[in-house]
Amino acid sequence: MDAAAVERFYARHMHLLDGGAATAWARTFTADASFASPSMTEPVRGRDGIEAGARAAVAGRAAAGEVHRHWVTMTTVRPAADGAEAVSYVEILATPRGGAPRIELSCVMRDRLVRRDGELLVAERVVTRDDRPHG
Amino acid sequence: MDAAAVERFYARHMHLLDGGAATAWARTFTADASFASPSMTEPVRGRDGIEAGARAAVAGRAAAGEVHRHWVTMTTVRPAADGAEAVSYVEILATPRGGAPRIELSCVMRDRLVRRDGELLVAERVVTRDDRPHG
Amino acid sequence: MDAAAVERFYARHMHLLDGGAATAWARTFTADASFASPSMTEPVRGRDGIEAGARAAVAGRAAAGEVHRHWVTMTTVRPAADGAEAVSYVEILATPRGGAPRIELSCVMRDRLVRRDGELLVAERVVTRDDRPHG
Repeated sequence: MDAAAVERFYARHMHLLDGGAATAWARTFTADASFASPSMTEPVRGRDGIEAGARAAVAGRAAAGEVHRHWVTMTTVRPAADGAEAVSYVEILATPRGGAPRIELSCVMRDRLVRRDGELLVAERVVTRDDRPHG
Repeated sequence: MDAAAVERFYARHMHLLDGGAATAWARTFTADASFASPSMTEPVRGRDGIEAGARAAVAGRAAAGEVHRHWVTMTTVRPAADGAEAVSYVEILATPRGGAPRIELSCVMRDRLVRRDGELLVAERVVTRDDRPHG
Repeated sequence: MDAAAVERFYARHMHLLDGGAATAWARTFTADASFASPSMTEPVRGRDGIEAGARAAVAGRAAAGEVHRHWVTMTTVRPAADGAEAVSYVEILATPRGGAPRIELSCVMRDRLVRRDGELLVAERVVTRDDRPHG
């Protein structure tokens, strides 16, 4: 698994999320994927929960009249058994209608990616926030 | 056409624009390229118009005492007949002399890229701004 | 030397710096590397000086209660005798504990990279700041 394939995956993955395609976004995770972030009290498991979370985020942005962009940068990739472990910086840029963009959040995203039928999927994701360095 | 070639193209392309090389920048478009953005009343066609636009932008930044950087991120690439279609996030970072940087604008850039004599060129560009989600 | 290898190098390189691994960071430079930036009165030479600089920066961030992220973007690579010359945009994003991120600085980084025992190392680095366009 090369780093370029991982970067292409993240580009498509984040276009789906930012574009509001919650179902298609959830399908870029494995069926039993685990997703942990400090804004959740416990990790979400499985595509239904991941899709519901994305749908809530999309609705929140629409209500706020904002466009969000997730940038995945500085990705390091370590090959693993059936895929790779990838560590990236993620920044969320928010633009209100008629207003100036602001960087909403800076995070580190640790992913276990697996290859299934020739496609990359996220099997496990752990996100940490730079504004809460100790969780 | 691979995604890495497209990313290399964009790096060179934006270094030219940000460095004030308006003529060389215009030559990274095809002779009859079309360039549409919400800040134009109608699309620009051809290198002369694209060069004039870049020259005006360079003069504006110089007058304002600012350095601008265009970042092209999260590029997805779909192969096309004689090139590729690429969709990217573009952010413009502005730094005033002696001041702090600010993100001036967040956009989505849709390009039709063609290969001519072994070089990538922009044949058609459509830019949308995140602060004007409905044009 | 391909651009993808350079980008992978920068990802690892900046994870080390941002993660506070000053010694490992210094080892991504050649033993006699030169590092010049406008915030230094004269260029630093060699790994000890580079490590000391990184250690001071790490201590400063810890004292300020901030997390810093260096993004290397829009890298152009030109092959050279035993490596490559790479020109990149570098932005430093700072997040205070419990606060919103801000872009601290936008720079251009010019590197001479060399390959030693199969690994890329920085032999010479010159950084310019966008807020001081004339040094």
